[in-house]
Amino acid sequence: MILTVTLNTALDLTYRVPALTPHASHRVTHVLERPGGKGVNVARVLGALGHDTVVTGFAGGPNGAVLRTLLARCPVRDALVPIGGNTRRTLAVVDDTTGDTTQLNEPGPTVTPEEWSAFLHRYGELLPAAEAVALCGSLPPGIHVGAYAELIRTARGAGVPVLLDTSGEPLRRGIAARPDIVKPNAEELAQLTGAREPERAARDARRRGAHAVVASLGADGLLAVTASGLWQAPPPATVKGNPTGAGDSAVAGLLSALVDRLPWPDRLSRAVALSTATVLSPTAGEFERETYERLLPQVAVQTQAPAA
Amino acid sequence: MILTVTLNTALDLTYRVPALTPHASHRVTHVLERPGGKGVNVARVLGALGHDTVVTGFAGGPNGAVLRTLLARCPVRDALVPIGGNTRRTLAVVDDTTGDTTQLNEPGPTVTPEEWSAFLHRYGELLPAAEAVALCGSLPPGIHVGAYAELIRTARGAGVPVLLDTSGEPLRRGIAARPDIVKPNAEELAQLTGAREPERAARDARRRGAHAVVASLGADGLLAVTASGLWQAPPPATVKGNPTGAGDSAVAGLLSALVDRLPWPDRLSRAVALSTATVLSPTAGEFERETYERLLPQVAVQTQAPAA
Repeated sequence: MILTVTLNTALDLTYRVPALTPHASHRVTHVLERPGGKGVNVARVLGALGHDTVVTGFAGGPNGAVLRTLLARCPVRDALVPIGGNTRRTLAVVDDTTGDTTQLNEPGPTVTPEEWSAFLHRYGELLPAAEAVALCGSLPPGIHVGAYAELIRTARGAGVPVLLDTSGEPLRRGIAARPDIVKPNAEELAQLTGAREPERAARDARRRGAHAVVASLGADGLLAVTASGLWQAPPPATVKGNPTGAGDSAVAGLLSALVDRLPWPDRLSRAVALSTATVLSPTAGEFERETYERLLPQVAVQTQAPAA
Repeated sequence: MILTVTLNTALDLTYRVPALTPHASHRVTHVLERPGGKGVNVARVLGALGHDTVVTGFAGGPNGAVLRTLLARCPVRDALVPIGGNTRRTLAVVDDTTGDTTQLNEPGPTVTPEEWSAFLHRYGELLPAAEAVALCGSLPPGIHVGAYAELIRTARGAGVPVLLDTSGEPLRRGIAARPDIVKPNAEELAQLTGAREPERAARDARRRGAHAVVASLGADGLLAVTASGLWQAPPPATVKGNPTGAGDSAVAGLLSALVDRLPWPDRLSRAVALSTATVLSPTAGEFERETYERLLPQVAVQTQAPAA
């Protein structure tokens, strides 16, 4: 099975309004509730691809209960650890006139030391059965900034390949623990390394400890810098749509191809086809299987000179 | 006891953000959850004033469960009728830079005919013990537009004074059923009667069936047109603050003074002092007892010529 970790899960709400006007009153025409947080999104995509997928992390309070009810309808297994606090909400307000989204993210509950210990115990129980583990998203209040580094060391000790998708100081500390893959976006990579040029920044991130760096570059697709080479995988076509969840779909594609023991170019094809299908989907963060399968053979991965 | 009816209850959320920018991502700095819907707000003020107060209407789903948990901490009695649908949320996004509020209201669940029957049964059980009843707010999907008229006739049949605070067609139909008091704002009154001048519109509303009309005119305070006279009650001072809930506090003041058998000028004083204290409170929809008691003797009710 594939294990995804989401320490800061969220109940994702989407509101549609005819037009968002600050300081006015709005009638919401459509409400959507989804289980969220990056690792949960990754797991939903993996489950849709047919992988046996387990979700862990934290959930609590009334929002956590709704999240778990919604998660039970997804093709993933729920191994979330209960907490006393109320799981945060995130709200995406979609303006039907412009198609733009305004995002409002609650801060999330504070996790206690006892809850963190309970999680470490659960994580240790789950790892032996995992073919790969993904550590995704921000850290909630109460969790020490080196938490991902700790989880990476445990996974590596258990011989489980580990992918890290986070930002800021948790990414910096995590990379030093030598994860198999990190998947920053251009902004996160620049923030980490100080280099704005993606290839240079990705090489720098490898020197800091990551075995492979897969950078998501928006409309330019993915750039992978690994021990065995450097690849660029642009989207198969110029796509217009909602980029919400495209990065999480790319992570799912990388993990899916990793456990299927595919070489790097095929991993990138899968990741790019999935993230492009997600952008094209009318529902944010979802993808249509048919679109993914149509796009997959169209992704042209470009090999470049081996990484230094 | 005083009975308040809220057919379209809500879980009221307030988000504070440093500044609201459409199409940007925001970190919410503070989240507040409150039991809401106009009649629930009225009941909370009545409870705070020391009145034995019962809340009825509908609540269901995870949001309804949170609403009822929060309501249990208020000095009111919960007689809400369970429904299968999920109670709506309302979200007020407060911009900490400008102090302005952007409001997003979910549509609310559809009430089934069986749930409406269960409510009518509950309402009939509660009425004999009520000294007054307030019917407040919008109608949820599934409830017929003449619902308030039906509830007014039942209350009048039981000899219980009834106040109606709604708008649009439910107000038009409700007034024809001869409620004791209606409390429209200037906009609702103009929409009902076609007259923009408040006194003329209020007289028109009386002719349509309301025994007394108390119009809330924002910064101009309250205008009451009754069988025994016409009064104007401006706020005791020019007030700056958040007007959220001021109308609900005015309704609470009218009901409180009605069951205390006070004459009209004293009813208006209580209503204006409460709504002014609500505007001045740092927390939207709340009021400080001390502010209310300080303002009460400062309200100068002006008598005018008896209503035609």
